[in-house]
Amino acid sequence: MHRYRSHTCAQLRKSDEGSTVRLSGWVHRVRDHGGLLFIDLRDHYGLTQIVADPDSPAFKTAEKVRGEWVIRVDGKVKARSPETVNKNLPTGEIEIFAQEIEVLSSAKELPLPVFGEPDYPEEIRLKYRFLDLRRETLHRNIVQRTKIIAEMRKRMGEAGFTEYSTPILTASSPEGARDFLVPSRIHPGTFYALPQAPQQYKQLIMMSGFDRYFQIAPCFRDEDPRADRLPGEFYQLDLEMSFVEQDDVLGTMEPVLRGVFEAFANGKPVTQEFPRIAYDEAIAKYGSDKPDLRNPIEMQDVSEHFRGSGFKVFANILANDPAAAVWAIPAPTGGSRAFCDRMNSWAQGEGQPGLGYIFWREENGKVEGAGPIAKNIGEERTEAVRVQLGLKPGDACFFAAGDPKKFYPFAGAARTRAGEELNLVDRDRFALAWIVDFPFFEWDEEEKRIDFGHNPFTMPRGGLGALETEEPLSIKAYQYDLVCNGFEIASGGIRNHLPEVMVKAFGIVGLDHTVVEERFGGLYRAFQYGAPPHGGMAAGIDRIVMLLVGAKNLREITMFPMNQQAQDLLMGAPSEASATQLRELSLRVNPVKKES
Amino acid sequence: MHRYRSHTCAQLRKSDEGSTVRLSGWVHRVRDHGGLLFIDLRDHYGLTQIVADPDSPAFKTAEKVRGEWVIRVDGKVKARSPETVNKNLPTGEIEIFAQEIEVLSSAKELPLPVFGEPDYPEEIRLKYRFLDLRRETLHRNIVQRTKIIAEMRKRMGEAGFTEYSTPILTASSPEGARDFLVPSRIHPGTFYALPQAPQQYKQLIMMSGFDRYFQIAPCFRDEDPRADRLPGEFYQLDLEMSFVEQDDVLGTMEPVLRGVFEAFANGKPVTQEFPRIAYDEAIAKYGSDKPDLRNPIEMQDVSEHFRGSGFKVFANILANDPAAAVWAIPAPTGGSRAFCDRMNSWAQGEGQPGLGYIFWREENGKVEGAGPIAKNIGEERTEAVRVQLGLKPGDACFFAAGDPKKFYPFAGAARTRAGEELNLVDRDRFALAWIVDFPFFEWDEEEKRIDFGHNPFTMPRGGLGALETEEPLSIKAYQYDLVCNGFEIASGGIRNHLPEVMVKAFGIVGLDHTVVEERFGGLYRAFQYGAPPHGGMAAGIDRIVMLLVGAKNLREITMFPMNQQAQDLLMGAPSEASATQLRELSLRVNPVKKES
Repeated sequence: MHRYRSHTCAQLRKSDEGSTVRLSGWVHRVRDHGGLLFIDLRDHYGLTQIVADPDSPAFKTAEKVRGEWVIRVDGKVKARSPETVNKNLPTGEIEIFAQEIEVLSSAKELPLPVFGEPDYPEEIRLKYRFLDLRRETLHRNIVQRTKIIAEMRKRMGEAGFTEYSTPILTASSPEGARDFLVPSRIHPGTFYALPQAPQQYKQLIMMSGFDRYFQIAPCFRDEDPRADRLPGEFYQLDLEMSFVEQDDVLGTMEPVLRGVFEAFANGKPVTQEFPRIAYDEAIAKYGSDKPDLRNPIEMQDVSEHFRGSGFKVFANILANDPAAAVWAIPAPTGGSRAFCDRMNSWAQGEGQPGLGYIFWREENGKVEGAGPIAKNIGEERTEAVRVQLGLKPGDACFFAAGDPKKFYPFAGAARTRAGEELNLVDRDRFALAWIVDFPFFEWDEEEKRIDFGHNPFTMPRGGLGALETEEPLSIKAYQYDLVCNGFEIASGGIRNHLPEVMVKAFGIVGLDHTVVEERFGGLYRAFQYGAPPHGGMAAGIDRIVMLLVGAKNLREITMFPMNQQAQDLLMGAPSEASATQLRELSLRVNPVKKES
Repeated sequence: MHRYRSHTCAQLRKSDEGSTVRLSGWVHRVRDHGGLLFIDLRDHYGLTQIVADPDSPAFKTAEKVRGEWVIRVDGKVKARSPETVNKNLPTGEIEIFAQEIEVLSSAKELPLPVFGEPDYPEEIRLKYRFLDLRRETLHRNIVQRTKIIAEMRKRMGEAGFTEYSTPILTASSPEGARDFLVPSRIHPGTFYALPQAPQQYKQLIMMSGFDRYFQIAPCFRDEDPRADRLPGEFYQLDLEMSFVEQDDVLGTMEPVLRGVFEAFANGKPVTQEFPRIAYDEAIAKYGSDKPDLRNPIEMQDVSEHFRGSGFKVFANILANDPAAAVWAIPAPTGGSRAFCDRMNSWAQGEGQPGLGYIFWREENGKVEGAGPIAKNIGEERTEAVRVQLGLKPGDACFFAAGDPKKFYPFAGAARTRAGEELNLVDRDRFALAWIVDFPFFEWDEEEKRIDFGHNPFTMPRGGLGALETEEPLSIKAYQYDLVCNGFEIASGGIRNHLPEVMVKAFGIVGLDHTVVEERFGGLYRAFQYGAPPHGGMAAGIDRIVMLLVGAKNLREITMFPMNQQAQDLLMGAPSEASATQLRELSLRVNPVKKES
């Protein structure tokens, strides 16, 4: 018989009755029932109940073992009596009568219980991550994560993609976030950088004549702690294709990602055909470029009903600024003064002066708009607003007025708030959509200059011609995001592959030719020696896993995460370097200044 | 029709005759045959011949295109005449008569030709890696690499393993080589380290209750340039299993790795059942712990024939040192003075005083040993040597004498040399074997102390008892390597999972309890809370790919390698950091000292 086990702890069934077996695993818990000892023995695969009776030679050891000891048990499989069968356990029809128990490894008193998974302080969970990971929910999340990634790999392979690894020790590539640097010992005073993303490499792979690249790619960004991003590293499903247009990338990836979602959605519906929503439309309807489409509320422009109306605040805004507009946020079933006042208070808490509203009720068989705005604009305009929005008595509507470029994020938040408060959001599904036609440039209000909207490597719609003749802020890009339930889960674009377009685009944001060559030398050089049209995208694996397992925190789906202070409490990183290491790297550490 | 292509450049066959098609790709080469222009159009998948005749509207563009331009071609598929069919090309039965050619991207004059793959200086190849990678051999090697890795993944999955990623920003872990450090911005003066291997993490994964882990793991070692290792990063197939003994790991991985080899051996035979050779036996027979078993030479101890013999040099060595021995390196078919003298000169070039030999010839129907040693030890002993080694007239034998611990590497080199010079090595197969029973400790001659032989995390044979009672240098470890054709391609061990064994083993090499806790805190802590017996191994992916594709240089199987000076010439790394970056990291660079 094998030294440690003849079966795993998930394997034995009623049909094994009578066999002599050997199991190894952790003592999940021990119970004493009228002199008999019951041990739940746990391994990666499952649980099996062990019984030790006082007559058994195993009893003495069974009395000694405690939670999380590792033991080997030899025994006989017996069927449980019908009233003791545990239907929740695959092995619940049997139990093992122990004949011999060997302690393979004992455990000190646990700093963190494994059985029952009570809440525990995060610092202890991270320091004793090896215990935390034995807990059922986290253990299952990590297994699901590996399965989701394996499914991605499988489907990417089936879609004709090949997995290539790109370097991790590479050049600094200013892509927006801060690089992690790695000092070079051989070339004193110089540094490698860890990749923020394999963007340049994947484009270089296309320049190198490979056709469909993907990678489960580690990415590194030295950002300040943020709730929605782990410090240090994260993973993306990164891909790139040659000789494609935008439709090809979306058409190829939509079935892959829908398939991954369906495989792990646990029966929840997944959008079958992802709508393609232009960026401008997403902003206008949802106040966000990552709308939660489970929320049925769609905003509308209702400016015309306020122009020259008796509600002077809005009328003046519209009169004084040609860019101004009034948007309506319909709130079906929100038609009560109490709810509207709650929304108004919430808006004030968000730093707004307030949130104007109308709500409709039926009075003496007649539909009537209520609230100060309705009073000010009068019955006819109030009714026109209601008709445009298709609202009924019992519904409400909120208004945002001003320059939409400035108020849309607030309007979007109000839409979200109303949808959630009114329980309009169907939580049990995955609502996916492509957001397309992002602006190529955007206005940087702080620096008072034009900057790239997203990715400087994207091809502008209209190519060189557009850059040369159109108003820069009106140019759209072949740039797309995939959103799910209010989160951006992927982003990509058709890339620019023409050096003259690259130079022109950088010129518009004020960076000349030499900057392009210096910062993106490898790619710029490659564009000059036969570059294929190409495009791709990158999907955030951590976010997708979180959505699919229903986790609220990245640390619940990451095996060995750092804490929010970017420390690995299990391994003790970061830590001081030795004098020898610093000398070899030609580095000195600045003395730490005490904050006064 | 699709914007860029209806087919790839490898797809069209005679059955497509008459269709109108669209292809895109790189201009591999252009030939002018009697006014007709022939363009070999290349993409990732293959080559297709395009024909442009002077009457075609495409002709004007066809005249203009040069090597490595990217073009789109619309045209009609025609069958080639029987005498122009190219049997070496899957598309060789057809050609495309171009109707329209669009230049998608042009190319400047090439710094490096793609067609024909002539030798080119490495610096240019690395700087223009995107061109180098279009060359047939390198392109194919990289594709093979991805396929080999995909095969490993598939087979590991089938063997019940799950792929988990371990952190890349982690703690310094003194495993023999130098760490790459990553300065922490948030914790000034401290550093993360890139993992030399996921050794501690994979053991922690076992402590966390997962059962069969694997990973295609990036590893980082800041070593000085070595011909057989790329600077920076390399990949290993890393794995670990719980509740196993040595036989389980070897028995599980042998079919996986044999399968990978067979899938890519291109018909060359692969060892069916890997022999298991004890370390001591490998040293004694092959003078190496990574023997090339395609070389049939096996050394033997022939001390008894020299003890008290007339060859005083050897006799005295044996008389003066009880550890001394004389080893014979048989050299079948090497029985000529010319060959033996060549070997002797080679040995002198290696810094040896010389290489004693006997060779046998048939004189007047009688077998006779020749050479100075034969003369000195006399006919009877010479014949005894021949009989022991099973040699015939026409064969030779070389001798090494002294303390085998010191001379075995030279003896092994002589074995290799003789085997290669005499063409005894069967190059066209993959000879795999496990080397087992490595010594747990070894004597560090420089520091005059006992050190770990391989991995301090390995379980010694005999466990705590052996450490407490046996002579340390005699203790063997549950440590094994897999060798192929003279290279170590994998290494592993059954790990120690008991804290008291860890403390005792480190004590023997002079490191006390506190050092263990400080250096391996996470793992040491984990051992105290229920650790399962476990073991695993790691296989060197780069080396396996090199063997399978027959490449001599790591840069021939790596997509974006650094040069031997640890520079990425394509991306320009490492490079200087900005003053802002250094300030954020609380670092200063020491002024560079000019070498005098």
